[in-house]
Amino acid sequence: MILDDGGDLTHWIYKKYPNMFKKIKGIVEESVTGVHRLYQLSKAGKLCVPAMNVNDSVTKQKFDNLYCCRESILDGLKRTTDMMFGGKQVVICGYGEVGKGCCAALKAMGSIVYVTEIDPICALQACMDGFRLVKLNEVIRQVDIVITCTGNKNVVTREHLDRMKNSCIVCNMGHSNTEIDVASLRTPELTWERVRSQVDHVIWPDGKRIVLLAEGRLLNLSCSTVPTFVLSITATTQALALIELYNAPEGRYKQDVYLLPKKMDEYVASLHLPTFDAHLTELTDEQAKYLGLNKNGPFKPNYYRY
Amino acid sequence: MILDDGGDLTHWIYKKYPNMFKKIKGIVEESVTGVHRLYQLSKAGKLCVPAMNVNDSVTKQKFDNLYCCRESILDGLKRTTDMMFGGKQVVICGYGEVGKGCCAALKAMGSIVYVTEIDPICALQACMDGFRLVKLNEVIRQVDIVITCTGNKNVVTREHLDRMKNSCIVCNMGHSNTEIDVASLRTPELTWERVRSQVDHVIWPDGKRIVLLAEGRLLNLSCSTVPTFVLSITATTQALALIELYNAPEGRYKQDVYLLPKKMDEYVASLHLPTFDAHLTELTDEQAKYLGLNKNGPFKPNYYRY
Amino acid sequence: MILDDGGDLTHWIYKKYPNMFKKIKGIVEESVTGVHRLYQLSKAGKLCVPAMNVNDSVTKQKFDNLYCCRESILDGLKRTTDMMFGGKQVVICGYGEVGKGCCAALKAMGSIVYVTEIDPICALQACMDGFRLVKLNEVIRQVDIVITCTGNKNVVTREHLDRMKNSCIVCNMGHSNTEIDVASLRTPELTWERVRSQVDHVIWPDGKRIVLLAEGRLLNLSCSTVPTFVLSITATTQALALIELYNAPEGRYKQDVYLLPKKMDEYVASLHLPTFDAHLTELTDEQAKYLGLNKNGPFKPNYYRY
Amino acid sequence: MILDDGGDLTHWIYKKYPNMFKKIKGIVEESVTGVHRLYQLSKAGKLCVPAMNVNDSVTKQKFDNLYCCRESILDGLKRTTDMMFGGKQVVICGYGEVGKGCCAALKAMGSIVYVTEIDPICALQACMDGFRLVKLNEVIRQVDIVITCTGNKNVVTREHLDRMKNSCIVCNMGHSNTEIDVASLRTPELTWERVRSQVDHVIWPDGKRIVLLAEGRLLNLSCSTVPTFVLSITATTQALALIELYNAPEGRYKQDVYLLPKKMDEYVASLHLPTFDAHLTELTDEQAKYLGLNKNGPFKPNYYRY
Repeated sequence: MILDDGGDLTHWIYKKYPNMFKKIKGIVEESVTGVHRLYQLSKAGKLCVPAMNVNDSVTKQKFDNLYCCRESILDGLKRTTDMMFGGKQVVICGYGEVGKGCCAALKAMGSIVYVTEIDPICALQACMDGFRLVKLNEVIRQVDIVITCTGNKNVVTREHLDRMKNSCIVCNMGHSNTEIDVASLRTPELTWERVRSQVDHVIWPDGKRIVLLAEGRLLNLSCSTVPTFVLSITATTQALALIELYNAPEGRYKQDVYLLPKKMDEYVASLHLPTFDAHLTELTDEQAKYLGLNKNGPFKPNYYRY
Repeated sequence: MILDDGGDLTHWIYKKYPNMFKKIKGIVEESVTGVHRLYQLSKAGKLCVPAMNVNDSVTKQKFDNLYCCRESILDGLKRTTDMMFGGKQVVICGYGEVGKGCCAALKAMGSIVYVTEIDPICALQACMDGFRLVKLNEVIRQVDIVITCTGNKNVVTREHLDRMKNSCIVCNMGHSNTEIDVASLRTPELTWERVRSQVDHVIWPDGKRIVLLAEGRLLNLSCSTVPTFVLSITATTQALALIELYNAPEGRYKQDVYLLPKKMDEYVASLHLPTFDAHLTELTDEQAKYLGLNKNGPFKPNYYRY
Repeated sequence: MILDDGGDLTHWIYKKYPNMFKKIKGIVEESVTGVHRLYQLSKAGKLCVPAMNVNDSVTKQKFDNLYCCRESILDGLKRTTDMMFGGKQVVICGYGEVGKGCCAALKAMGSIVYVTEIDPICALQACMDGFRLVKLNEVIRQVDIVITCTGNKNVVTREHLDRMKNSCIVCNMGHSNTEIDVASLRTPELTWERVRSQVDHVIWPDGKRIVLLAEGRLLNLSCSTVPTFVLSITATTQALALIELYNAPEGRYKQDVYLLPKKMDEYVASLHLPTFDAHLTELTDEQAKYLGLNKNGPFKPNYYRY
Repeated sequence: MILDDGGDLTHWIYKKYPNMFKKIKGIVEESVTGVHRLYQLSKAGKLCVPAMNVNDSVTKQKFDNLYCCRESILDGLKRTTDMMFGGKQVVICGYGEVGKGCCAALKAMGSIVYVTEIDPICALQACMDGFRLVKLNEVIRQVDIVITCTGNKNVVTREHLDRMKNSCIVCNMGHSNTEIDVASLRTPELTWERVRSQVDHVIWPDGKRIVLLAEGRLLNLSCSTVPTFVLSITATTQALALIELYNAPEGRYKQDVYLLPKKMDEYVASLHLPTFDAHLTELTDEQAKYLGLNKNGPFKPNYYRY
């Protein structure tokens, strides 16, 4: 079995030891990037064992992204800058799970939050959740903090950075280190000053300073911690996926990429309920029949969004 | 074309005028129940035209359910009971989109909210959102309000009703009129007193009164209003689905049930952004290529949960 | 004893039956206006019996104003307009107790809320609570709702009304009917259309409509209800004030205006705790001594702000 | 002038150099404790210069306590324990400004929060804000975190500590180091293990561990930081108080303890508005006259609670 996070191991075996795939029963992949690479292999007809995409299981998505980032954005900013959130103007680029978590947390702490989005559905959600939907240019001169959570590249460009006000804080909660065009700041007219671990002041000729966190890498990994509870959920999901692929009867999984079966997703959740002393209700026979459900789940169709 | 809500028209044509289906290009169905009936027809191999399930489009789900109910639960309770929400203990049965909306609203108004769930994933979401997950029996004696949003039947039984405290309010935000076992209250030892339109006091021999709203039918339809904004989203979705089925080239849709194509879902959302003066960001060519997306969408895979 | 609300009864007795004051043991006054009139009488040396200002007791202020308005702003708007709160831009004039309640409620419902203030302390509170502090002119063209809660006059002028966008809703949660300059709308070029009880459309020559609620009178009194819980707190406060003045030993109260003794304020609160099944902790002897407090209260100095 | 925080300098001069008071124009005191000592001196007739209590100015109270603690409780817990807040059960002892801040923050992060109180008014506020009011004994076995913010002593006793569940976190946001009876944990049958700076595990004979932060001293000072914004407000208040006492005409201040004049409190606030780009509204002459106010303030009576 391969348990991978990012797809590098998978890639390496493909390149160096392709024969090993004869003995490998399956791949379990954790990350957006790795999953992307698997889907490409699959499209190209080159995936030679079943693979399971655990990145998109509900428990992983909601916990690793929404709930975890709701807390780590505050933690990461506090540890690096000691700033006060109340009254600060913040623009958050991207209103996916990570963006939703960051927005909720900062709004709750009294920040005034603006959102940018490319997807009209997420944009409408931002509106209904009480955030002004703007283009970055509209607010870049006035905000105190810029946070990227898009999974995209060059969302914050040198032009944006040039227009930010003095002591604006810039950081990335999204993906890799591509969202902020940090390379554009490595030019002779700008001075870099490391003021603390993970915190750089980039200084313009007129004295304006931008506070860049973690050199544009992930704030939640570089400047915050991942709670054990989130690790437990992720690890449980991975372990169950490995067991499922290993034990699956011949033919259940072909040479393709699969989502974790919903029943397993539900099982991961149920294993974590006791820590909250949470008491689940059981369907009666009559209710299960009425709903056309098995009393032990799965409880939702595959397209259910939670 | 058939534009249906609940499946009754479809059913009636099947029964009385089956020949009409030769001329019908498709069915657009709006409701959970109607969609359920369509999937059953499809399974049984009896669906003879393409059908589109607009109930499960994102815009419909989030707006008709989450965002609309977040407001109508407050509206419905105020119009019928004039109660104060602050400090009240409330149990909400079901933490789907409707339950999430009701919980968020009442928590924001200062109620203490308990949640019951059968699905461990939704249960874990309730925990992370700050609600105690209980079985109904654990809190039934102490709560001031009981709200059902499960889509299930007999969630509140006579036994529960017997144990509620005096002047407890009971209402249904979920589905049809099955969630509260109202029939069990039509017994000789209980007295019904209509105190106001949509409000009944059910009186126990010892004088205890339960305040039953809308006789257990949907509070949001019986005692509140649906904002025009939500109607606009729903109607737009229906109209686009009709146009899509009508204009689709031969063979795109078979005799099956389809979800609204994501691009249309996104289009519905984009049509409603201007009312919020919301400004969508456009991908640059470079970004679209990086993400492997068309600049005009769709922006997400089908399994994306929002 | 006189139990007054607004000072009219007091004024009338002063004018018509001044001799009655020989037999009157005291006045209990409920409203801002009445209290203002009493303080003026006192300043002028004309107050001839003790008076108790119950308007400024904590329980009255927080419940009648903050907590009650937090709910009645939503109720009043829903009953009159059926609008959806999510995504709406709202400006709230005044960030006192009433304004704080309105802001908290609408923010929780997903509105984007701007605040205007004259007092820098309240203004700073608005900032820390996450609201943009603006002058009315800055946002008047873009907002969907204008709510006044200042206690002032002509806060919304004809000039503001001229600049509002089509279908903007205007209402008053503050004081009397002075906050919106409704008189300025009674001019020939504007057409008034009563669309529903308490709801007028005022129509400009170019077709623009403003939705004026309750003709600028108090929304919370005209279009919403006051929960019995709030009435109970207010009535208890009044009753205790009457008893206190009646039973007070000669000389405790002179011909002046008094705040309700803190111990009574605390007593009113304690009488309302059982409805929430709330369990108060008692100080141990050792703790009471350490804090220099009587175990039965009062627990705070008079200047404590809660 | 004496600028004191805690009253130690004042005490020391009283004891060692009482003659210096002949040349001292006044004392400005920052802390609860120091203010308490000044009031005692004043009661005893021993205060020989005017003193200004800046602890109870609005800006100090709300910023140093409510708004600052709303953030530092999260910061302090994260830096020491890396715990996840979502779903955790927390009991907060005391619902004053500090308790209100802690409760709001943890509720917003998805914790389930219980409150204990001795004062019925604060208790009723806790109810209206959506918190179950309990005695500590009722929830001590089930909570994950215990936070004290009472200003009292021995709020958490050895008996409570004995009954907490394994890995319960205990910390103090209130006053000094008296709130948790830490001394009671220094007994032979309990083992202390320092797991990290400011974090001790106290281990019971059966293996149960309690996580004690900062040995019961103030979490917000020991394990978090005070934002510069809060320091600026406090320092401004102190400086203005010094200037006021120094410049005051003979006789304005006697040998007593004074609150900062409201106009200065408002001035401190107004100096901090520009950092939020906040725009204050000015009263028109007509409005100022209507309200009976000076256009430059003060805007509220002394008993106003904000």
